[in-house]
Amino acid sequence: MKYADPARLASLIDRLATISEDGQGVTRLAYTPLERQAHRVFAEHMSALGLDVRTDAAGNTIAERPGTDDLPALGTGSHLDSVPRGGRFDGIAGVVAAMEVATVLADPRSGLRHRRPLRFVAFAAEEGARFGLACLGSRLAAGLHTPHDLEQLRDADGVSVAEAMRGVGLDPARVGEARWDPRDWAAFVELHVEQGDVLERAGLPIGVVDTVSGSTRLRLDLTGRPSHTGATPMAGRSDALVAAAQVVLAADAVAGDARHRGTRATVGELRVSPGSVTTIPGQVSLSLDVRDVDSDRQRRTAAEIVRHAQAAGDDRGVRLDYRLIGDSSPVVLPLWIRDVLAGAAAAHGAEYRVMTSGASHDAQIVNKIIPAGMLFVPSRSGVSHVPEEWTSPEELATGVDILLSALLRLSDEGTS
Amino acid sequence: MKYADPARLASLIDRLATISEDGQGVTRLAYTPLERQAHRVFAEHMSALGLDVRTDAAGNTIAERPGTDDLPALGTGSHLDSVPRGGRFDGIAGVVAAMEVATVLADPRSGLRHRRPLRFVAFAAEEGARFGLACLGSRLAAGLHTPHDLEQLRDADGVSVAEAMRGVGLDPARVGEARWDPRDWAAFVELHVEQGDVLERAGLPIGVVDTVSGSTRLRLDLTGRPSHTGATPMAGRSDALVAAAQVVLAADAVAGDARHRGTRATVGELRVSPGSVTTIPGQVSLSLDVRDVDSDRQRRTAAEIVRHAQAAGDDRGVRLDYRLIGDSSPVVLPLWIRDVLAGAAAAHGAEYRVMTSGASHDAQIVNKIIPAGMLFVPSRSGVSHVPEEWTSPEELATGVDILLSALLRLSDEGTS
Repeated sequence: MKYADPARLASLIDRLATISEDGQGVTRLAYTPLERQAHRVFAEHMSALGLDVRTDAAGNTIAERPGTDDLPALGTGSHLDSVPRGGRFDGIAGVVAAMEVATVLADPRSGLRHRRPLRFVAFAAEEGARFGLACLGSRLAAGLHTPHDLEQLRDADGVSVAEAMRGVGLDPARVGEARWDPRDWAAFVELHVEQGDVLERAGLPIGVVDTVSGSTRLRLDLTGRPSHTGATPMAGRSDALVAAAQVVLAADAVAGDARHRGTRATVGELRVSPGSVTTIPGQVSLSLDVRDVDSDRQRRTAAEIVRHAQAAGDDRGVRLDYRLIGDSSPVVLPLWIRDVLAGAAAAHGAEYRVMTSGASHDAQIVNKIIPAGMLFVPSRSGVSHVPEEWTSPEELATGVDILLSALLRLSDEGTS
Repeated sequence: MKYADPARLASLIDRLATISEDGQGVTRLAYTPLERQAHRVFAEHMSALGLDVRTDAAGNTIAERPGTDDLPALGTGSHLDSVPRGGRFDGIAGVVAAMEVATVLADPRSGLRHRRPLRFVAFAAEEGARFGLACLGSRLAAGLHTPHDLEQLRDADGVSVAEAMRGVGLDPARVGEARWDPRDWAAFVELHVEQGDVLERAGLPIGVVDTVSGSTRLRLDLTGRPSHTGATPMAGRSDALVAAAQVVLAADAVAGDARHRGTRATVGELRVSPGSVTTIPGQVSLSLDVRDVDSDRQRRTAAEIVRHAQAAGDDRGVRLDYRLIGDSSPVVLPLWIRDVLAGAAAAHGAEYRVMTSGASHDAQIVNKIIPAGMLFVPSRSGVSHVPEEWTSPEELATGVDILLSALLRLSDEGTS
């Protein structure tokens, strides 16, 4: 049965996309007023359907629809923040899917019932773009951080997570209250855009995720000796950007090496100081992001790139300082949920692919305390984190129908 | 004879250093209100000595002290703008030297007379840091640009020189009036800090410049394909930063090569877009600055680095766009002025070194229309364009005394 309405989904996607710092794609960073504004759109939608809605101390917004029985709940949802100049689907697709599931269930004509309560979740601060560490909202729900951690972690402007939270009316001292009680939950399913081109190339409408890549993130600071570009001979220079360029190429070469098949290493952020045409760069700060589905290889690769950076610095009298800003292991999602998701896809007549996720997701964090699963819908041309990110309303609606069907199956699962 | 007062010089240097965007060194960019503020300090000092002071349409401030005879004038001075987070001596030393020469001459106890009028000049916008093109003020004095050029040349924020000029009350349409008439000038001498460590290593108080390096400046824009760092495999990426890193290393390698002895090539500015930890860089814009005392080698080196950039881009599906933002040839300064400067140093009992300048200077532009010379005073540790830039007040005073003596000698030169 088709329940989800492509036009309604498209309208929600469009509405949320307008909440952005500027018009080049979507810029709605973690723990900013714009992110809170998107959460209010979600909360108002759910309230209008008659659901109880609350926002916890971590900024996660949760709407609850009671089931027919008093049982641990099912959850579904994703996040509403974006990277700078990102797209309108990453995260948002999963939240809009939850909004559409709630809309369908609230319509008495659907005749759909569920034994377990359903919780629709909009997580806060999933993107690591601002603070370096991804999935902050779900990490707090999983109880992985203390208020102290939130004072330490800072964005590029030196603003701590705690300061940013206070700035949007959240109380970082009380994040302990945002922790989920696993006894209260049966399972969690996240729908997300694939962000790669596997489904598009195969012409398939849905993916069932078995493994989510881990990610090791480092910040590297290279300190050389700034001076005049004209008056300073080449010999004896300590050019921090030349050392940084060697790090960028080392990351590309190491991860591109055949022995590292499947590893991805990227320098996405790089700032040069003082950044003047006529001054040899004295300082460069850069981010390194290493992803892998093989936990050991992920850490070995990061360590190997740091060794290259150290050697490049030593050669040029450039000092290297580095620190770990995030480290998550690859996660294998529970087989039994995967089976339910695959069964729902098959019942919908949709051919699916079991696949890995290169990107991190809230579901992998939730899975630390609650069994979790993930559905992927296709991404046009496989691009993500860019304004061109695109999934058609029809593709999204197919995903929502399979998600709805899976939630209804999980609602009965283990209850008989 | 010692005329210059180290304490007075130190006090002027200190006062001008406070006119800065922030406290980390001096940031007083071309055609900003802060630069104008520094020019007002110069103008007020000269007015207080009874000199006629005017600011021309290019923003150059000129104070004139009449000579005893009606002859073409002598000029001395330098510039008052800085690079971002630069030092307190680059340019300023030469203007402060002019202020001190004027102070000494205004004191009747000095008993010094000169036949030619003396013009003390504070040039505007010498640093190429903002607009890419160096020596704008002196270039306009030499008649090298039209108002149209000033509408074209833009800073990193897209502000044209003309807009910046209008923003500080200058009229770019009238820069033709700022052009100097060569018949009205006999010679020009600029005192400047060396910005290298040749004098310090040799333990010498003064340098006489014979050749000033030329500079070829380019902006290179690399456009790749941004996407998610986790979901995008290494194979098939078009990472603009990886291509840019190859350009940085090519510049370093080409200029560091033995065949290029004396060439200096630097990428001083590099901006990554979108600049997010989790997005493959889609765009990188960088500056390339190539300096040489050999004009042909300077252009060949720039072309060679561009070829490397083109090849690096082609390998990765990264598009290269580049444009020339400045190109000045090396300049050999007139021997007869060098001889006068050397004679003044010798008469002062100062051992001097005849040397080349790696940096560009207003004097090399002025020399296009008026015979020009340059004196260097030592730079501690040879660093420049950084907050640590330093020349002691005593070293500066020695330079001023030699400058004064040279101006008095030039005042008689060719007049008998």
